[in-house]
Amino acid sequence: MIEDKDMVVRDEVRKMKLVAPLVAALSNETRCAALSKIAEKLVEKQSEIFAENKKDLEYAEQAGVAAPIVKRLKFDEGKLRDVVAGINQLITLEDPIGKVTLDRELDEGLRLTRVTCPIGVIGVIFEARPDALVQISSLCIRSGNCPVLKGGKETTYTNRILFGIIYDAVKEAGFPDGCMLQVEQHNEIDELLTCDGLVDLLIPRGSNAFVRYIMDNTHIPVMGHADGVCHIYVDSKADIEKAISIIIDAKTQYTAACNAVETLLIQRDDVLKKNFIPRLITALAENGIKLRGTKEVTDLVDAYYENESKDGSLDYESVDESDFKEYLALIVSAKFVDNVDEAIDHINLHGSHHTDAIITEDDATAERFMQLVDSAGVYQNCSTRFADGFRYGFGAEVGISTSKIHARGPVGLEGLVTYKYKLVGKGQIVGDYATGKSAFHFKDL
Amino acid sequence: MIEDKDMVVRDEVRKMKLVAPLVAALSNETRCAALSKIAEKLVEKQSEIFAENKKDLEYAEQAGVAAPIVKRLKFDEGKLRDVVAGINQLITLEDPIGKVTLDRELDEGLRLTRVTCPIGVIGVIFEARPDALVQISSLCIRSGNCPVLKGGKETTYTNRILFGIIYDAVKEAGFPDGCMLQVEQHNEIDELLTCDGLVDLLIPRGSNAFVRYIMDNTHIPVMGHADGVCHIYVDSKADIEKAISIIIDAKTQYTAACNAVETLLIQRDDVLKKNFIPRLITALAENGIKLRGTKEVTDLVDAYYENESKDGSLDYESVDESDFKEYLALIVSAKFVDNVDEAIDHINLHGSHHTDAIITEDDATAERFMQLVDSAGVYQNCSTRFADGFRYGFGAEVGISTSKIHARGPVGLEGLVTYKYKLVGKGQIVGDYATGKSAFHFKDL
Repeated sequence: MIEDKDMVVRDEVRKMKLVAPLVAALSNETRCAALSKIAEKLVEKQSEIFAENKKDLEYAEQAGVAAPIVKRLKFDEGKLRDVVAGINQLITLEDPIGKVTLDRELDEGLRLTRVTCPIGVIGVIFEARPDALVQISSLCIRSGNCPVLKGGKETTYTNRILFGIIYDAVKEAGFPDGCMLQVEQHNEIDELLTCDGLVDLLIPRGSNAFVRYIMDNTHIPVMGHADGVCHIYVDSKADIEKAISIIIDAKTQYTAACNAVETLLIQRDDVLKKNFIPRLITALAENGIKLRGTKEVTDLVDAYYENESKDGSLDYESVDESDFKEYLALIVSAKFVDNVDEAIDHINLHGSHHTDAIITEDDATAERFMQLVDSAGVYQNCSTRFADGFRYGFGAEVGISTSKIHARGPVGLEGLVTYKYKLVGKGQIVGDYATGKSAFHFKDL
Repeated sequence: MIEDKDMVVRDEVRKMKLVAPLVAALSNETRCAALSKIAEKLVEKQSEIFAENKKDLEYAEQAGVAAPIVKRLKFDEGKLRDVVAGINQLITLEDPIGKVTLDRELDEGLRLTRVTCPIGVIGVIFEARPDALVQISSLCIRSGNCPVLKGGKETTYTNRILFGIIYDAVKEAGFPDGCMLQVEQHNEIDELLTCDGLVDLLIPRGSNAFVRYIMDNTHIPVMGHADGVCHIYVDSKADIEKAISIIIDAKTQYTAACNAVETLLIQRDDVLKKNFIPRLITALAENGIKLRGTKEVTDLVDAYYENESKDGSLDYESVDESDFKEYLALIVSAKFVDNVDEAIDHINLHGSHHTDAIITEDDATAERFMQLVDSAGVYQNCSTRFADGFRYGFGAEVGISTSKIHARGPVGLEGLVTYKYKLVGKGQIVGDYATGKSAFHFKDL
């Protein structure tokens, strides 16, 4: 299905390294015009795109790919509408490039400015979702970065035509040759990993094992998350109906997502045991969610079923809390904690610093939780599934970062920007400041 | 000299992980009060500090440590005055923590805020300079972070008393137990490197080989630079006297610094060849700087000495430009380039993205250079030695970053800060937005 290609990634990336500053210097107008042109051409060429996408879908069906995955491969009118809307939203956002974030006179005639600029060459390795290619490219173009794109092989035909359309559009808008690169072979990922000094940032999207592989095999900085173990803490002051509705949404609305809930922490409170646990048991059972609880939790389930019908009963098992993990499936862990502080410590030690929620009507407890939980997202009374660039109003995201370095949480335009310091003088030398002949006066302008 | 200690770093750091959120929640007043108390106690206990420092100095002299290094180990009244001034400057800086950088209503009753917060647990491994311990600790305290400090072994006694004074001061000010940690054994560095998931960031300071060793042997994010190959480009429109004075300062003012110049790029221009090269030859010779130039450069030196006295002549050799490197010594590389664009490409491909300067009176050329050179610092008509946290008015620095991710250039308080997203709702679930029952309205507040 994929044709052989020479191993030329390094050469191409080396050229891109010199093109990147030219792209960084393009005006906001040029970058926005490129995006408009992309949106225009995608609509214009939709039947060709759909035809290429059909090849990928047929190939996937022949290969016996599971139906839910085939659905993600599809690029239809709905997906086209969504990506075009995303591009148009990106155009309306404030330019992230060229912002002066510091303007300081160090001394008479010696002026320091700090100006935001693109990161440069960004390698993005993403799952087989054609809309992801458009979103990631658009974010890079809006922020003046040069992307090296490697999509999932199941959408090779679709990726190829989408990339061609986007590349043609940006060149028509005035972008230089070599400002974008698509690689198609899996072994080219390994070649890309050796390009430290040329590639400024890698953004891998995919399984934990894949992200870990990338991190372990390159000297290039990597932005990404390897885990999404999200918690919901149900406080004794929780509104029980909100708690149930949020837990079910956070577990079932998109089970395979990194922001789906994996662990429930429940305050050890008699009222919750009496009123919340039975509601939780029936809600989990109704939604086909398996419960892996500590013995204290499953004893309550046992007690519940002593009095209740076992029809449509809950699938549950007793496990040690050291066995709690990321399921990405209709399974949830649960344990009791004494109070919000025990919940906080559990999350900070065992969580993945992604997104964690408290359900409580007590705002002081919520504030304590949100202050002390050390995660990219800390929520009160809403679903962990809200952790997403679109839902935060960022237009799109290149990924969600659980690192605390650089970008945290959903990463939109701001995460694709760095800065440089510019210093303009009249011949000043440091020796004069060291000897006291001159002195700094640090005036912010 | 150093006593044996159990390998307990991991246990201590694990405790610190749970203490870090409490430190992050301390008020600006408490953090500033801690700094004032440190300054006060350092002055109060100065004779004890100097006595401990004397032990380190005596030990170094017995061990035959070179005089310039012994000088760096010294902690005297001048150094004390400097660190106290640095602490007092830090107190006056704006609080970097708790800044709301986004406040957005996603929908009625669903409010997203982004708030700056400390990074958490930061491991800093630094050279044998007692003032570095005070500066790094102060930056961490001001920004609400918990430092794990490993200083050079040559200042063990001084570090120990300084750490003790600082730790007592912050605890008196209301910081919790375990908010700071000092490790003394070299093998404890390796233990620290295994603490991914507990330590949020490592900042190694030291040789290229050392920083590279750290990067290659940990999964913890590392902030630092491995190289400082700084360039000065002398444009045909340069003021020659400024050029000479800046080059000499950038090479000699502190030769071992990462912001010292290593490579000169000179425009291939007849006037420069005639007027600048002879001035450069004599200035380099006068300052004992060896020139490693391409043949085109050394041919001009040869020609010069055909007519001039060889007394006090320049030490020079002809080398291939692929042999240019970081010297950290009184040696400088030089080559000719056709124009600013060739200089830019050379710097972007061969530089270390640290600090690079252009010497020119032509502001348009300077602007092009500063736009297109992809370095943390891009300078016009001043010495590369200005790249420093103090000289930028940051109060202090924990290091200089040549990475474009997170922090770039001299890293002060802002580089020790991350953010979290807080989302407060009334029971909202994502399912309602997916089905269209609810819709986002994204109002910035």
